[in-house]
Formats: sequence, structure tokens, C-alpha cells
Amino acid sequence: MKTVLSGIQPSGKIHLGNYLGATKQHIEMQKEHNCIYFIADLHALTTIRNAEAMKKNTIEIAMAYIALGLDTNKTIFFKQSEVSEHSELCWIFDCITPMPFIERAHAWKDAKAKGKKDPTVGLFNYPILQAADILLYKPDLVPVGQDQKQHIEMTRDIAQNFNNTFGETFKLPDPYIKDEVATVPGTDGQKMSKSYGNTIDIFESESVIKKQVMSIVTSSIPVEDPKDPKSCNVFKLYKLLATPEETKEMEDKYISGGYGYGDAKKELLNKILEHFKQAREKYSELESKENLVMEILNSGSTKAKVIAKEHLKEIKSKIGYL
Amino acid sequence: MKTVLSGIQPSGKIHLGNYLGATKQHIEMQKEHNCIYFIADLHALTTIRNAEAMKKNTIEIAMAYIALGLDTNKTIFFKQSEVSEHSELCWIFDCITPMPFIERAHAWKDAKAKGKKDPTVGLFNYPILQAADILLYKPDLVPVGQDQKQHIEMTRDIAQNFNNTFGETFKLPDPYIKDEVATVPGTDGQKMSKSYGNTIDIFESESVIKKQVMSIVTSSIPVEDPKDPKSCNVFKLYKLLATPEETKEMEDKYISGGYGYGDAKKELLNKILEHFKQAREKYSELESKENLVMEILNSGSTKAKVIAKEHLKEIKSKIGYL
Repeated sequence: MKTVLSGIQPSGKIHLGNYLGATKQHIEMQKEHNCIYFIADLHALTTIRNAEAMKKNTIEIAMAYIALGLDTNKTIFFKQSEVSEHSELCWIFDCITPMPFIERAHAWKDAKAKGKKDPTVGLFNYPILQAADILLYKPDLVPVGQDQKQHIEMTRDIAQNFNNTFGETFKLPDPYIKDEVATVPGTDGQKMSKSYGNTIDIFESESVIKKQVMSIVTSSIPVEDPKDPKSCNVFKLYKLLATPEETKEMEDKYISGGYGYGDAKKELLNKILEHFKQAREKYSELESKENLVMEILNSGSTKAKVIAKEHLKEIKSKIGYL
Repeated sequence: MKTVLSGIQPSGKIHLGNYLGATKQHIEMQKEHNCIYFIADLHALTTIRNAEAMKKNTIEIAMAYIALGLDTNKTIFFKQSEVSEHSELCWIFDCITPMPFIERAHAWKDAKAKGKKDPTVGLFNYPILQAADILLYKPDLVPVGQDQKQHIEMTRDIAQNFNNTFGETFKLPDPYIKDEVATVPGTDGQKMSKSYGNTIDIFESESVIKKQVMSIVTSSIPVEDPKDPKSCNVFKLYKLLATPEETKEMEDKYISGGYGYGDAKKELLNKILEHFKQAREKYSELESKENLVMEILNSGSTKAKVIAKEHLKEIKSKIGYL
């Protein structure tokens, strides 16, 4: 059974775009892999500078994953900041990685190209911590989108560089290119993203979700006229959750006419509530059990620490740290 | 009693230049201060890429300090790489420090100006780890040479930046500008430095030290003629170890004539061996007790870790790490 490692941004209660783009696959991968998932709160510090927001986003993402089916008996699930070996290995890699190597990271080049004001050292040093995050646990696979393949390439290069300098120590992980998920449209038709304020949330109250669904931008074609499902955001979202049969059914209604966007929105809302019924129940149960969530994360840290500590010991001995 | 913090490069058996430039003051400061000294093996990784050299340099510097009078019951003496909080705080500072801020560090600007080939991220990120090294222990004073004042200024700025962002957390340390030590000349008259191969070592065998002293470059003035003590490297070195009376005596012999450089070298050699007699005995005792040295360092790490862990806990809670 292969080991899979992935970092999860502490982005709070997740929305449909997060779920379909990452969480769903994370949960599914548990079936056939040993999974190690961490909440990347060290990375998050490059953007979150507020203790309340950091706490809230961390606990909410943890609850979301547990509610959606993370098997904490099987999968190692923890907060990055609890395992000091991530930062320790980051510094070690800092010392052997030439500056020009990380200057070519996409994220950094983007930030520079966009004239980002006062980018931090953390933003710059990000690929090195990422390499440490991964290489500590000797995973076989790291799930990434097509656009994130560079991360894994850089991680492999850093590992190789260490191996060349101090002798064979790191295993080179392979990227596991995620299934192409159709871009999840937000309520305004752009890609769904918190920063666009166009999300449909999974764990908000029914009334919030209803309001979000009802606000989906549609065309002004009257109820009685036939409509093109393919260009409709409501249909696109429905399709991502419904079975092929259900999808075909709605498609037919669009084409036949006499079926309004309001009707489609209602069906979408019901589909969302039905699809996430169990997860939503579990989530609200967890909301009153924050201690339990913390215990789960702490127990995950303990397990992760065992692996990380053992490996860092080997790494340090290769360097000559007594 | 004020707390003093200082990092010591693992530079192996120290030479007279190291001793007079830093170690002597480190030892003396113990009398009136709480001292925390660490062997900066994390920093050393920017230059040492060989496990044997790293081990040797670390154990030798530790033995040198202990032999020269480090009071390990009073002073906390440890290896930086043993206290993970240094790297952890380094990453935290990375995330809040703007790139332009550390781009102006002297060491980095020098490296760039000299066209250093493939400088590493570690060399660039050095001032941030240094700030972490210092601020973790809330010292009052950090001994530095005039030319290193920038380090402390940067450390204070980083502390202030964190305090402004997350609330009062770090105490701003003051630089303790070291007494101006006359530059210690090497055997060729240049500043004594391992990289020039002109050192006079403290803990080598008598025959090695004798050879080094005898190789000091002098003028070709014959024995019988008067000589100028001020321009003579032998005299300059003697003066750094001898009492004012002894110095005056040798000065007179130089001026009177009939006193050869060979005679002066013999006196210098005796002075060195006498001055370091006890330390040299202690050092050779320690050479056969590597385990004892390791125990001393480990016990130091344990003490340092207590302080560092407690403080990092506070720092993490300010950030919002659960």
C-alpha cells in the first residue's frame, strides 16, 4: 500500500469548490493508500496575521475533514506547527539550496511580476518548507494539480541535492496528478473562491446556503422558453453532485422549456443538502466538541512526530550533528 | 544579574586569535552575568558540508570552552541543533519579515558584491535565524564587535515587528560592544585566521606550537642591533598575554640591542605554554572523555530547551496556533 502525503490550507469551513477540488479526493484516497494529511498552519502564517482567524480556520478545516469522512484511526491527520521537524528540516534545506534555485518558483515569480508589496521571506522560502513537509515522511505519492507539478519537481531536486551531498537519505516522491475536476463555478460564474465572495458553503446554515444558491447568476430567459443547460451555472453545479441519470433528467427539463432557473436552483439546493446531510450533522455535532477535535489532532501529531523524529535523526547524523 | 547570550561558531580547536577575540571575554562575562552560549551548528551548515568535519569542529570547540574555564554548572552551554525552537521561530519570523529587510544585511550584500557563486538560501536567511537564536532566550545583552552591530539592530527590528503585529512578546536586547581587542597578528603579520594558514594554536602539541611561533615573520635586523618592538609581530603577540611589567621588560630588551628575534620567540612560546598550561591539561583530559563532553552539552540543551519551549509556547499562542 502506497503512502500519500498532502498539506491542507487552514481555510476554515470549506465551500463546494474546496470540496470538489481537493477534499473529496483526499477522503477517497484513504481507501487504497496510507494517508498522511497535515493542516499547513506554518504556511498559512504567510497570509494570516490574526490569532482568532488562525484558530478559527484551523479548527473549522479539521472539523470539515472529520465530518466528511476522514478516518482518523487510519489516516495520520495533524497540525504542521505541532511537529517541529518541519521547520528544522526547512533550515537544513535552506543551507544547501542555492538562491537561484528557489527564485524560479512560480509562486515567487508571480508575486514579483504582480509587484506584490513587501513579499515576505516566508513566501520566498515556501518551496523549501514544502520540500521538508513532504520528504520527512518518505511518501510515494503527493497529490497535486497539473499546475502544481513544479512543487514536486523542486522537492525532488532538493532531495537529490541532499543525497548527492551527504549520501542516500531521501526517497524521491512522485506527483499524483489529480483527476481533472471541472472548474467549480461560483455564484457569479467565475471560479468559486472565498476571495471572490462567490462561494456556496457546505457547513453554513440552510438559510445561508439557500441564499447563496438563489444568488447564482442566470440568464434572463423566461420560464416557458427552452434553455441551454451547458451555459448555466446552476446546471453545472448540479452536474458535479448528481448521478448521470439525475443530470440527464435536469438537462431534459432545461431543453424542453417550462422549467425556470428558480426550479433548478431549488433542485440544486436540495441536492446539496442531501449530498452533505450526514457530513453536516456530524459537523454540527463536532462544533460542540472542540476538545475532541483537538484530541484527534494531538493524537495525529504524536503519530506524525514518531515518523518525523526518527527520520530527522538519520538526517542529522548524515550532516554530522552529534 | 543580566542575561547574556552568544553564539559560537564550531570552528574546532581554537587559535590565539579566536581566544583573544572572543573566548576570553565569554569566559570572563560569566563572573557577573547569567550566560547562555550555544554552538551555532545550524549556521555552520551554510559552510560545512561534511559530517566528519562538523563533528570534529563541534566537539573540539566544546572541549576548548570547557578547558578554558566555562562553568557548566552556571552557564547554559549547548548545541543549537538540539533545540528545535531555533528553527521553529526562524520560520515564524520568515513569515512576517519582508524580503527587502533582509536583502540589506551586510553579509548578504558582501556575498553578492563579491559575486559569490550560488549563495544559499541559508546564507540569505541567516539574520532571521540569528534573531530567533537571540530572542528565544530574552537576553539583556548580546556581545558583538563594532562591525556586527547591524545583527542586533535587525534582531530588534524583527522583534518590534512581531510585537506590533501580535502584541508585546519579545524583549529588545541591547548590543554589548566588546572591548576593542588589538587585532591579533598571525605568523605572517596579517590578521590571525584559519583561512590564511597563519595561526598559533592553543591546543595543539608543543612541537606544533613551537613550529608556529618560530615561523613568525620578523625583520632581518641582526641580533646585536636595537629593534623596534612596535613593528614586531613577536612582541605584539607577547604583549597580548604578558603583564605590563613583562611587556616593559621585553620592550627594553628590543630597544637595547643584543636581543634576537629567536630569543623573543622563545619567550613568547614559554608565555603561551605557561598561560594555557591548565587549559591544555584539561583539554587533553577531555580528549579521552568525549562522552563527558557530550553529556555536558546534552545537559545544556535540556536547560536551554526548558526556556525556549516555554517562550515558543507563548509565541505560538499569540499567533493563534492551537
